[in-house]
Amino acid sequence: MSLFSNVPQIKYEGRKSDNPFAFKHYNATEVVLGKTMEEHLRFAVAYWHTFNANGTDPFGAGTAVRSWDSLSPLDRAKVRVEANFELLEKLGVPFYAFHDADIAPEGATLAETNKNIDIIVAKLKEFQQSTGKKLLWNTANLFTNPRYVFGAATSNNAEVFAYSAATIKKMLEVGKELNGENYVFWGGREGYESLLNTDMGLELDNLARMLHMAVDYAKEIGFGAQFLIEPKPKEPTKHQYDFDSATTLSFLRKYGLKDHFKLNIEANHATLAGHTFEHELRVARLDGALGSIDANQGDYLLGWDTDEFPTDLYSTTLAMFEILKNEGGIGKGGVNFDAKVRRTSFEDDDLFFAHIAGMDSFAHGLKAAAKLIENKTLDAIVDGRYASFGEGIGAEIVAGKHTLASLEAYVLSGQKPIVNRSGRLEQIRQAVNEVIFSV
Amino acid sequence: MSLFSNVPQIKYEGRKSDNPFAFKHYNATEVVLGKTMEEHLRFAVAYWHTFNANGTDPFGAGTAVRSWDSLSPLDRAKVRVEANFELLEKLGVPFYAFHDADIAPEGATLAETNKNIDIIVAKLKEFQQSTGKKLLWNTANLFTNPRYVFGAATSNNAEVFAYSAATIKKMLEVGKELNGENYVFWGGREGYESLLNTDMGLELDNLARMLHMAVDYAKEIGFGAQFLIEPKPKEPTKHQYDFDSATTLSFLRKYGLKDHFKLNIEANHATLAGHTFEHELRVARLDGALGSIDANQGDYLLGWDTDEFPTDLYSTTLAMFEILKNEGGIGKGGVNFDAKVRRTSFEDDDLFFAHIAGMDSFAHGLKAAAKLIENKTLDAIVDGRYASFGEGIGAEIVAGKHTLASLEAYVLSGQKPIVNRSGRLEQIRQAVNEVIFSV
Amino acid sequence: MSLFSNVPQIKYEGRKSDNPFAFKHYNATEVVLGKTMEEHLRFAVAYWHTFNANGTDPFGAGTAVRSWDSLSPLDRAKVRVEANFELLEKLGVPFYAFHDADIAPEGATLAETNKNIDIIVAKLKEFQQSTGKKLLWNTANLFTNPRYVFGAATSNNAEVFAYSAATIKKMLEVGKELNGENYVFWGGREGYESLLNTDMGLELDNLARMLHMAVDYAKEIGFGAQFLIEPKPKEPTKHQYDFDSATTLSFLRKYGLKDHFKLNIEANHATLAGHTFEHELRVARLDGALGSIDANQGDYLLGWDTDEFPTDLYSTTLAMFEILKNEGGIGKGGVNFDAKVRRTSFEDDDLFFAHIAGMDSFAHGLKAAAKLIENKTLDAIVDGRYASFGEGIGAEIVAGKHTLASLEAYVLSGQKPIVNRSGRLEQIRQAVNEVIFSV
Amino acid sequence: MSLFSNVPQIKYEGRKSDNPFAFKHYNATEVVLGKTMEEHLRFAVAYWHTFNANGTDPFGAGTAVRSWDSLSPLDRAKVRVEANFELLEKLGVPFYAFHDADIAPEGATLAETNKNIDIIVAKLKEFQQSTGKKLLWNTANLFTNPRYVFGAATSNNAEVFAYSAATIKKMLEVGKELNGENYVFWGGREGYESLLNTDMGLELDNLARMLHMAVDYAKEIGFGAQFLIEPKPKEPTKHQYDFDSATTLSFLRKYGLKDHFKLNIEANHATLAGHTFEHELRVARLDGALGSIDANQGDYLLGWDTDEFPTDLYSTTLAMFEILKNEGGIGKGGVNFDAKVRRTSFEDDDLFFAHIAGMDSFAHGLKAAAKLIENKTLDAIVDGRYASFGEGIGAEIVAGKHTLASLEAYVLSGQKPIVNRSGRLEQIRQAVNEVIFSV
Repeated sequence: MSLFSNVPQIKYEGRKSDNPFAFKHYNATEVVLGKTMEEHLRFAVAYWHTFNANGTDPFGAGTAVRSWDSLSPLDRAKVRVEANFELLEKLGVPFYAFHDADIAPEGATLAETNKNIDIIVAKLKEFQQSTGKKLLWNTANLFTNPRYVFGAATSNNAEVFAYSAATIKKMLEVGKELNGENYVFWGGREGYESLLNTDMGLELDNLARMLHMAVDYAKEIGFGAQFLIEPKPKEPTKHQYDFDSATTLSFLRKYGLKDHFKLNIEANHATLAGHTFEHELRVARLDGALGSIDANQGDYLLGWDTDEFPTDLYSTTLAMFEILKNEGGIGKGGVNFDAKVRRTSFEDDDLFFAHIAGMDSFAHGLKAAAKLIENKTLDAIVDGRYASFGEGIGAEIVAGKHTLASLEAYVLSGQKPIVNRSGRLEQIRQAVNEVIFSV
Repeated sequence: MSLFSNVPQIKYEGRKSDNPFAFKHYNATEVVLGKTMEEHLRFAVAYWHTFNANGTDPFGAGTAVRSWDSLSPLDRAKVRVEANFELLEKLGVPFYAFHDADIAPEGATLAETNKNIDIIVAKLKEFQQSTGKKLLWNTANLFTNPRYVFGAATSNNAEVFAYSAATIKKMLEVGKELNGENYVFWGGREGYESLLNTDMGLELDNLARMLHMAVDYAKEIGFGAQFLIEPKPKEPTKHQYDFDSATTLSFLRKYGLKDHFKLNIEANHATLAGHTFEHELRVARLDGALGSIDANQGDYLLGWDTDEFPTDLYSTTLAMFEILKNEGGIGKGGVNFDAKVRRTSFEDDDLFFAHIAGMDSFAHGLKAAAKLIENKTLDAIVDGRYASFGEGIGAEIVAGKHTLASLEAYVLSGQKPIVNRSGRLEQIRQAVNEVIFSV
Repeated sequence: MSLFSNVPQIKYEGRKSDNPFAFKHYNATEVVLGKTMEEHLRFAVAYWHTFNANGTDPFGAGTAVRSWDSLSPLDRAKVRVEANFELLEKLGVPFYAFHDADIAPEGATLAETNKNIDIIVAKLKEFQQSTGKKLLWNTANLFTNPRYVFGAATSNNAEVFAYSAATIKKMLEVGKELNGENYVFWGGREGYESLLNTDMGLELDNLARMLHMAVDYAKEIGFGAQFLIEPKPKEPTKHQYDFDSATTLSFLRKYGLKDHFKLNIEANHATLAGHTFEHELRVARLDGALGSIDANQGDYLLGWDTDEFPTDLYSTTLAMFEILKNEGGIGKGGVNFDAKVRRTSFEDDDLFFAHIAGMDSFAHGLKAAAKLIENKTLDAIVDGRYASFGEGIGAEIVAGKHTLASLEAYVLSGQKPIVNRSGRLEQIRQAVNEVIFSV
Repeated sequence: MSLFSNVPQIKYEGRKSDNPFAFKHYNATEVVLGKTMEEHLRFAVAYWHTFNANGTDPFGAGTAVRSWDSLSPLDRAKVRVEANFELLEKLGVPFYAFHDADIAPEGATLAETNKNIDIIVAKLKEFQQSTGKKLLWNTANLFTNPRYVFGAATSNNAEVFAYSAATIKKMLEVGKELNGENYVFWGGREGYESLLNTDMGLELDNLARMLHMAVDYAKEIGFGAQFLIEPKPKEPTKHQYDFDSATTLSFLRKYGLKDHFKLNIEANHATLAGHTFEHELRVARLDGALGSIDANQGDYLLGWDTDEFPTDLYSTTLAMFEILKNEGGIGKGGVNFDAKVRRTSFEDDDLFFAHIAGMDSFAHGLKAAAKLIENKTLDAIVDGRYASFGEGIGAEIVAGKHTLASLEAYVLSGQKPIVNRSGRLEQIRQAVNEVIFSV
């Protein structure tokens, strides 16, 4: 039984195609820099935006009408599983990702909730086996239920901390059961609304306690997924503790957690923090912590998380550049579309058109980034600019052979005149344009 | 000889006074929570904004006309020394702070520059001795001269790194000579304009190298000042490496520098990074790194560093609250007015009126913060809210006695119903209003 | 039957009171500048935030538990009427304001919806008569229902335009029935998501058509309420046509509607547009269009409409300053609390504490603004600064006696030297502080 | 004598060329939609950024070293004229634009200043005649000199108003002398720093007075240039009166100036106001007021005017789309590069590389926009979406045949079910990508 019966299998047809149900750039088996596109990109569909979201916003009711709307909660949950795998198959996407609350209705007690989860997990496992699709990551939703009004691991209420711990335990077990390749922590309400009534020190200590418990439990049960933290600066809380990559890395270092976590970096979260996506990726990459990405885009003129499907080719190119430069590329992580169709794109077809747009934009970005690397467009510039640290006084500095005193002596005893050369940024930007547009 | 002959000695006259040259709130010897106001606040005047700035902005020439404008560079530098101490005396401010470039003209060579500096430093020392005024901190200006177009410690040009090192060496010696209580590093151009032509990894490594050299040299010459890093997210560069407190702390930890540095936190830099001033102070405080503050305020609707004199009593109260809560208060640091009179406040008198406004606003904030602490206005709220971590399961969690499994067992075997209580933020804000406005 | 049985009648007890259910500043009958506080402020309670909102946000379910939650839609609507009048009475607030969708459940057809509305309107009218409370304004909710996904008057779908017209007609009749003093148009989705698929010209023409129809119909039925447009720059749509005061006034002028509308200015909408609240009020005031205000406050570091209860005394003082300076003050308008309790302030009591905080903050602001006016704190400064336009060449310019040529002649034939005087902004800000704090 | 002797004549060589001194897209004589590229784009070089700016920023001295740096002011002014025409010729740019202060040094008196201007204007005229290059627009710099500290037409000082009037008179005469096709008013300091000391009503009245005088004088001397106002929301002042297109149009309407002015819209000013460039262009276009553009780009994550050379092809495409849709295209206006080379692009060559990048980016945008129009990529979407207003009830509404009552009757008597169709934004964005990338 098909839930998207009017949607055909989506295939690569190239740029000349005018079939709206075809890829123009994403060709799974095409080899780029020694790996197939599928291996490079490891696309994942986000369960919540794709199967649960309905277009609600703070000023309006849902606009999307889905075939499963009228079913009972558990039946709806089951049909969504079918929808997920049909969509993955039709799009040729190898991975998916979910929160517990996305896949199964919450029960009156933890035991009941877990029972609901088990039913759906069994169904997911069955589908995984029959289709070969995989779980990129799962996570616990510790922000929607009113009990999390003050956070979960950072709640002021110890009972909430305990409940959160039990929920994380269950989701680690689910991850293991479904062979999840990663496990994500996004602290939706781990932050504060106002410092006036907040004990930030205790909250951060508790957050670290919870993460240590999770590390220990995964080890105990032999769940080998890569653990990921997803930074976001604000929304829903006024200030969130995992503000950006640097803040999260500082926290991980302070609490001895650095070796156990990488980062899941989201484009729109980067811009909300005042950074470009590529900045956040670079920061993580330099610390060996680039784990996975949430591929979407925001609107620079709006101040909230719009989670749009990514179509800005500048951004996809520069993101893929960082990923290609990362040791091992995206590794166990993937390109997860943490993106929702616009409230105004409320028809079922839009789910496919939007993913096609996102996948093609990232495939285009991959090809452009590969070309930048093959042509050494940027590397040649960087190598040239920093050449002075590869020889003479610069090489000595890098080798740790100098002190302030020895450098002063160098300067005073006839340093050659300081000559800087233009950074040529306008020319570089045009060169990048030419690469993106000749792919 | 007086440079501000029409300005009398500024004294405390209380709120009823209508003398514009009097303090309404700042009473140096008044005791608040066991220390005098002077000891709590340790005010400092910023040399650059006060004696060098002239109201220039990117769209217009300077507006301020100062009596020393027509002098030769070195004579001007000397008169500014006199102006500095006259202003400190008239305002009753105990400290001042400067960059090398503020006090002496740059020469054609490093040697010449250092000679100019020596002349002025001798004069500063003399005045310090005769007046009892002290140096809160000094620093090296590594951003104005064109040689720093690509940064100093993070320049792509090794010759610039060497020159910067020599400059820092000199300023550490000057700090020692003048008994500076702190030494500040603000990386004005330590950042990047575009990732396209930047080797961020090498730049950060080099920045750490420079800071280690500075730590070593200070030790070598027995200069015991507290070292401070001043975070700022952007401006002049597109992205600055010391983005905010958390980013800077992450860097210090990564490179083994955490024990050697505290932070000099500026209000306007906090807001440019998307944080409140009190947030940045809290983050630093929780890491034992709250060193000193640059007291000013920005405009939330403008996107650049406006460096206004602080008059927002909400901000001064919450800043002083963090400082009073900090172990040892502001310690060796101080409240440095990194603030400039508006371009439209171009008369000499404005230098005094602006400092009076800033000092009174911080004195008012100090009194309000002390009252919040004495009355336990906020502490009582916080203690009540987190009480669950002081007993039962919460206390066990904090004591490290739990795992995910034991907490799941706790939840499954009859956890008591989760009851959260209102955070009462509206009521708390009104209560804070009442305290601020009854001081 | 009381719905807030634990809440007593709130009375003025002054600043010394520590009764949380008392006003410290709002004293309805106290005379300020010749009118009572009640007459100046004309407070109104916003039905939607107070009785319908439950703390939902984009990342979480409602947190508020209200006694009427379990009732059927129509019964719930009836109980909310009782709650409204009990709250108005206990707070001593004279006005309330609502959208159609706030007061009655939408039916399957327009006829059914209107029937539901009639039931509740009858009840509201009855309560108005028995309590003396009044309707400040009503409006039609043309943004929540999915039919408005592309706007109402600016929808691309003519059927939606027609439906919207019918809805506005009904609400104008309701306004008349309840003697509403104003009628508000807030174009929640009158804007665009992307220019790529938008015919902005047609949409704006249609918006003007709808407003003309509304003007005509009100005249036809003899509904004499003041018509108000409420600017907002964005959210929910990417760009809203009534961006700010100036944009709205431009639209009204272009389409010949200027004489029929004033503005309902919201604090948080002002800041989202990049303006201060007082700026928007000043712009409206100078155009004779300051009609009413939506009193709330946003968070300058967040990019969405937080609709917080107003507690910033700088903002309430400067807002009341503009209102006191407006000819006729707030006139037929009022100070409507378009504010919601925080999601974390989910207890019934918070509804009262939050209104008390907001009312006291505006009462404090009123007193401070009155003092600024009585003392001529700002007027004296302004009069002095612009004195040159009251005499000589300035007076001639204002009188229209000059041309470029005559002014050139004036300059060339010995204009006296141009001397500007300091704007003294730091000193002025401190003076304003002193006034706010001595109230 | 050549000032840029190492720069050859720049010619179109197409995308395959790797000559850095060649255009890849801009081919002046290539015909697009019936006009040559040169006719469509009417490029202009901005004198100030190109010949006067030296890379100074608020934290650093100039970095650019130009061959004329050591000359006396008047000689420097003369050499810059030569540099201007050499650059125009080498780039094949037909127009230039300037402020009075750009071309000639200010004298001690107005008479002296005007004399300096006359000397340079004579030289400019001579070069115009010998080269065929033209003046796109000129304007008066009423913001740099300290006399304008409080504005020019909106100064609180009537003497400053008079001086400004004389200056504008001179520049209108210069515009006439040089056959300027437009004359621009950018009110750099026509705004306020704080409402606390500002009489906004008088200032706006005075601004209108000045503009009326300018209109009258141009008529008197027979200067037929198109008058343009350039909106900007802030910087240097906190709030500028010509905030954005809508605000400026409101002002022009209010003061009876609408028929005499069009707008000169700058990309970076649009984004500082919270709008896209294409939004501002659309608003102006719909009001018949799209006059000319200042082509540059800002940085969405920085809050000041960065005036970068435009290289974002999304922006250039959508801007050119609005211009092509405008009746008469850009008309008498042009594409003026109000852009400066980065402080880090300090070599002479960068002036050429940056203009090449900007010109190619706009040429690419022109071709892409033309293709969007020829293919009806967007028009077909828009026509389809609004079809309901071309027939039946929609056509009647547009024809003015309906009232609220007649529309209610329509709805109540069996309106057909309201069916909205998806806006398909994701698909549209991908389609636009494909067009941009296939140019």
